Amino acid sequence: MQTLRVELGARAYPIHIGERLLSDAGLVSPHLDLPRAAIVTNTTVAALYLQQLSEALRAQGVDVISIVLEDGERHKDWATLNRIYDALLERRCDRKTTLVALGGGVIGDLAGFAAATYMRGIPYIQVPTTLLAQVDSSIGGKTGINHPLGKNMIGAFYQPRLVLADTAVLASLPPRELSAGLAEVIKHGLICDNGFVAWLEQNVEKLLACDAQALAHALRRCCEIKAAVVADDEREAGARALLNFGHTFGHAIESSLGYGKWLHGEAVAAGMVMAADLSRRMGLIAQADVERIIALLIRARLPTAPPDVAPARLLELMAVDKKAVGGTLRFILLDRIGAASIRADVPAGLLQKALLG
Amino acid sequence: MQTLRVELGARAYPIHIGERLLSDAGLVSPHLDLPRAAIVTNTTVAALYLQQLSEALRAQGVDVISIVLEDGERHKDWATLNRIYDALLERRCDRKTTLVALGGGVIGDLAGFAAATYMRGIPYIQVPTTLLAQVDSSIGGKTGINHPLGKNMIGAFYQPRLVLADTAVLASLPPRELSAGLAEVIKHGLICDNGFVAWLEQNVEKLLACDAQALAHALRRCCEIKAAVVADDEREAGARALLNFGHTFGHAIESSLGYGKWLHGEAVAAGMVMAADLSRRMGLIAQADVERIIALLIRARLPTAPPDVAPARLLELMAVDKKAVGGTLRFILLDRIGAASIRADVPAGLLQKALLG
Repeated sequence: MQTLRVELGARAYPIHIGERLLSDAGLVSPHLDLPRAAIVTNTTVAALYLQQLSEALRAQGVDVISIVLEDGERHKDWATLNRIYDALLERRCDRKTTLVALGGGVIGDLAGFAAATYMRGIPYIQVPTTLLAQVDSSIGGKTGINHPLGKNMIGAFYQPRLVLADTAVLASLPPRELSAGLAEVIKHGLICDNGFVAWLEQNVEKLLACDAQALAHALRRCCEIKAAVVADDEREAGARALLNFGHTFGHAIESSLGYGKWLHGEAVAAGMVMAADLSRRMGLIAQADVERIIALLIRARLPTAPPDVAPARLLELMAVDKKAVGGTLRFILLDRIGAASIRADVPAGLLQKALLG
Repeated sequence: MQTLRVELGARAYPIHIGERLLSDAGLVSPHLDLPRAAIVTNTTVAALYLQQLSEALRAQGVDVISIVLEDGERHKDWATLNRIYDALLERRCDRKTTLVALGGGVIGDLAGFAAATYMRGIPYIQVPTTLLAQVDSSIGGKTGINHPLGKNMIGAFYQPRLVLADTAVLASLPPRELSAGLAEVIKHGLICDNGFVAWLEQNVEKLLACDAQALAHALRRCCEIKAAVVADDEREAGARALLNFGHTFGHAIESSLGYGKWLHGEAVAAGMVMAADLSRRMGLIAQADVERIIALLIRARLPTAPPDVAPARLLELMAVDKKAVGGTLRFILLDRIGAASIRADVPAGLLQKALLG
């Protein structure tokens, strides 16, 4: 097991990474105020891991309830959030009950936001079960739900007490989900570590084959990057926005299709190509760099072009993006492979061209 | 104008108290990130003060939109909160837009929670227009909405940038609302300032008559007490809970009747008598103290006994109170007039008797 820390003063917390941590409730129980936990998960993950985690916690004397939600991004909404509140209130869960988010990014975001807002905030723990959640969404305290007018529009910054990333569970991931997670892995390299991009170019097939050593390396590097960025800029006043590389385009793709048609990581992959193309049009990177990114994404079995949506529609959806300020769209662009910056000076004409591909 | 400060480090903010501050947008504009504001108010308050505040802000070059909600505690729910989100998204309000809560406790709680959760948090300003909101709910960052199973069950601690308490608006308050506010004024005295209770006994009729000097004194003292308590214990880990004196019983009364039948302050008044009676049964205060409290509440034209609700029903509603921990009810009891403490050792038999009155 490897342990990293997200250094946030009084709200600092550890990230444990390793195989078969799910059965090791001794890692969880020191973080509970009282031995009471409510596991929030979905039907798919519950069938695989709920019993294992519940029994491990009960063996430590923890009183465990479970709240099992429907699976899928389209359930990341008010109605599902209310199901969590209802269950917590019906079971008389108090302020000292710890929520445990057992699942992928949707469960982490939903359960984290429920924890942020139930009785004005209760503790929670992230137990991510997808690659995407392990390398990205479970770390850093971004929680929330979607709104019909935009993704993640309702939410809070609210840090977990602990992130427990069990790499053994990745073997059960459908290949499409593993690839979607690789999109965020590649993103971490593109925005701040050219050497890691080169490593990924050497090892992407091993990652797709769930090679334990390769996964452990990729996870550790992504968590290191994410933890450092979050520690510097918890509430995304500045550099944390770099982690949204590909996401302005990606969110617009997701919204245009309806949540859940494309996986988040798939939309981010296509979005990263669009952002790289825009970076090239801005004269920041070369065509060869764009092609290098596309080649890596293709090897990771990810889409590299947006679906068939009118550019005007994507533009409209991007205008409500959270990164827009005072009506001006801001983009995360690559200065080179391994370095990114926030730009508010993209001419409308170049953006149009990037959207047309 | 008097100015106090809530000392919360990076989140510290001023409370301005004075007459006709609503037209003085020069007090507001230094607290805006960008000159964009969304005023959240209700139909009643909008008719009285929306134009005045909007025009003052516009005269300062601020781009102002307004979101006018239905009036009343029963609208402090998901549906109304979503109306705020919808309006913000439809008007493309970004992270630098400041929400301005113009109204009483319901508007302050709703708008504050919308600010806490829209795009993971945007700035907001409290412009309380009721006595209750000016002395209590606008200060300290408690925000939230009700759930069918309990009052204020969904919410967040989220501090405003500024509280602007214009005492001139209190003249337009219906007498019943003024009395309800006095319940919280009296509460501040009962839990930590015996001298202030004596002052209230001298001046309660002046307050009911909206005497400007008396109101200014009461407001200042309550804001001082509240600001100090919040600065010491922002997230209610300890002493802040003392401000909930009368509220465990009061919330149960409100829930049992359906939100809005009794005003919050009225339920708190009856709740304080029940809590005082329980304090007497616990041997902490004398019958004469209880009678002194009742006499003051009667002069403030407040109820001093619960409505006709079965004690078993009140008990059931109290069990979901946020102050319950590990299934144990905790009560704020008076050690004497002017001093309170949190007690988890109330025997069930004594509680039953206090509920029967």
